[in-house]
Amino acid sequence: MCRENLRKIYDAAGADALLIEEDFLRRYLTGFYSTDGYAVLSRESCTLVVDSRYFEAAEKALAGSGIRVVEGVYSKALELLAGSRTVGVPYLFTNVPRAESLKAQGFALCDCMPALKSAMQIKSAEEIARIRRACEIAEDALLSVLGELKEGMTENEAAALLEYEMRMLGASGTSFDTIVAFGANGSVPHHETGFSKLKFGDPVLIDFGCKYEGYCSDCTRTFLFGDDRKHEEFKRVYAEVYEAHELVKRKLTAGMTGAQADAIARGYLQTKGLDGYFTHSLGHGVGLQIHEFPMLSPRGEEVLQDGMVFSDEPGVYMAGKLGIRIEDTVRLERGEVRSFMSKTERKLLIL
Amino acid sequence: MCRENLRKIYDAAGADALLIEEDFLRRYLTGFYSTDGYAVLSRESCTLVVDSRYFEAAEKALAGSGIRVVEGVYSKALELLAGSRTVGVPYLFTNVPRAESLKAQGFALCDCMPALKSAMQIKSAEEIARIRRACEIAEDALLSVLGELKEGMTENEAAALLEYEMRMLGASGTSFDTIVAFGANGSVPHHETGFSKLKFGDPVLIDFGCKYEGYCSDCTRTFLFGDDRKHEEFKRVYAEVYEAHELVKRKLTAGMTGAQADAIARGYLQTKGLDGYFTHSLGHGVGLQIHEFPMLSPRGEEVLQDGMVFSDEPGVYMAGKLGIRIEDTVRLERGEVRSFMSKTERKLLIL
Repeated sequence: MCRENLRKIYDAAGADALLIEEDFLRRYLTGFYSTDGYAVLSRESCTLVVDSRYFEAAEKALAGSGIRVVEGVYSKALELLAGSRTVGVPYLFTNVPRAESLKAQGFALCDCMPALKSAMQIKSAEEIARIRRACEIAEDALLSVLGELKEGMTENEAAALLEYEMRMLGASGTSFDTIVAFGANGSVPHHETGFSKLKFGDPVLIDFGCKYEGYCSDCTRTFLFGDDRKHEEFKRVYAEVYEAHELVKRKLTAGMTGAQADAIARGYLQTKGLDGYFTHSLGHGVGLQIHEFPMLSPRGEEVLQDGMVFSDEPGVYMAGKLGIRIEDTVRLERGEVRSFMSKTERKLLIL
Repeated sequence: MCRENLRKIYDAAGADALLIEEDFLRRYLTGFYSTDGYAVLSRESCTLVVDSRYFEAAEKALAGSGIRVVEGVYSKALELLAGSRTVGVPYLFTNVPRAESLKAQGFALCDCMPALKSAMQIKSAEEIARIRRACEIAEDALLSVLGELKEGMTENEAAALLEYEMRMLGASGTSFDTIVAFGANGSVPHHETGFSKLKFGDPVLIDFGCKYEGYCSDCTRTFLFGDDRKHEEFKRVYAEVYEAHELVKRKLTAGMTGAQADAIARGYLQTKGLDGYFTHSLGHGVGLQIHEFPMLSPRGEEVLQDGMVFSDEPGVYMAGKLGIRIEDTVRLERGEVRSFMSKTERKLLIL
């Protein structure tokens, strides 16, 4: 939704024209969402090509934006490219038949994904505001649901309630399939929410998020549904995951690489003998997509900068036994980490 | 989820090995769902490569299936391809960097999408059962929500209720962003559900569906929220869309092309002077994806066959005035159309 960035992206790509087909990239460039369409950037203009299903809505939404809307399909986008020698497409989101079709038209292709990625990694104030709202909705929904959890409720029912609350609060949908894991199910990092029933004393892991005006939130909370006094190890490990999560917030600064950020949590868990159970990355960028750049992983080479939004989500998983993850969506501002989440508890909650 | 088809797909592709990365294709081949991973098919075996987040769950789910599970990432998939000269990948779901990386490894690529498409278009009894359940859940949820609609309720609230009911009935989520359009909003075929409030006499268009064990349902109903006697044209047009929808069910037979199927509805609406307002295709395949093959459109060359599942969804849209769509998910069985939907009314409902 950064039309002011269009020129910057065009210039950085170094092509005569750009052709953008992927939904979320097209939305970023034009601010308009449709399931199909093409954004064509030339030196002089940005044109959105949409079919008859979207034309009326797009014209209305983009009136006065400087973005031209034309009705058509792929052939119309090709017409707009006529006269260009090199066409920039985002290779990561361009499939083989599309690339071959463009080459067959005589265009030389170049990759405009680096230009898009550089621009999209740094969120504008408008984007930050949308992510903030998506995070607020997620937290408010969780707070409602905490009061509704009952023995015998299934994971699926808890997910249904949470998604209902997010929708009612203005979300347009979830940002990914909600994960609710009761008991030892939490030890599978991407557990498929099912029909396990909630029992007194169960650990509960909920990984969820919603979309607000296209932008995602991502949050995980792990807590105990009552204390049956059988979860001493769980409590001990929880305290360490909590410390790893908080340490990232305190120590991560702009200028670090994703790998250095990841090492803050991983290094801490190593001193506790728990790094072998931290089987995924510390975090990922969050924006129009739930997983985007930068990557905060042992292989993350990206330098973290002000305006980047990402997750801070260390976790410890002991197969068949326990799983604990604590996740906030955060941003870098004035060189430091600021969380979007302020309403829900990160310390161990015992309901 | 058609492991019996693996050999057929392998043989039809004509490559030494197949490499499948796209989520839903991998799920189809192995029956296991993960957000990342690789299925590698050789003449002798099928191997699923998943990372540590999924390894435990995949081993458990695929025990005894004949599918081998190994832990790893892309480099592990490459190891499994060693010794192959030609590698089949689905071009439609293979991006430029992946294709270039495989070529750089010395592999010759070929497109295995036609082989996958042929197999996946014809649904097995197990797949039909899942789609049937997804359709039952959708209809039951709609019936619940019809009793809950109230004046002043927003589109978003109605969508929240519908999605909640689908989840409670066992759906794992929606098959696409639920569309609820009140009043004239229905004239935008892909209206973005928002904050318009329901008024007495409003037309209501709801396009929705859910996923059950990975498989989708797709349904649209248009009705009146009370009769304010101001909707004579709406009623007249509704009757014609209804007739077009039903005509497809009666006249469509196996052996027709997608274009011939589309022409049944389009031809009928033409006799009523309404074809100019039918601005999309008659239907699309439904399966693990909400939009898949075959396409029932003026350009649909595919021959329709028993076992195919698709939507029957004629619509008429008059900008800013009215929008009517009636959609069932249906299948071809013994040469004829059978609907999965039997619980909700297709004739004009006035609440």
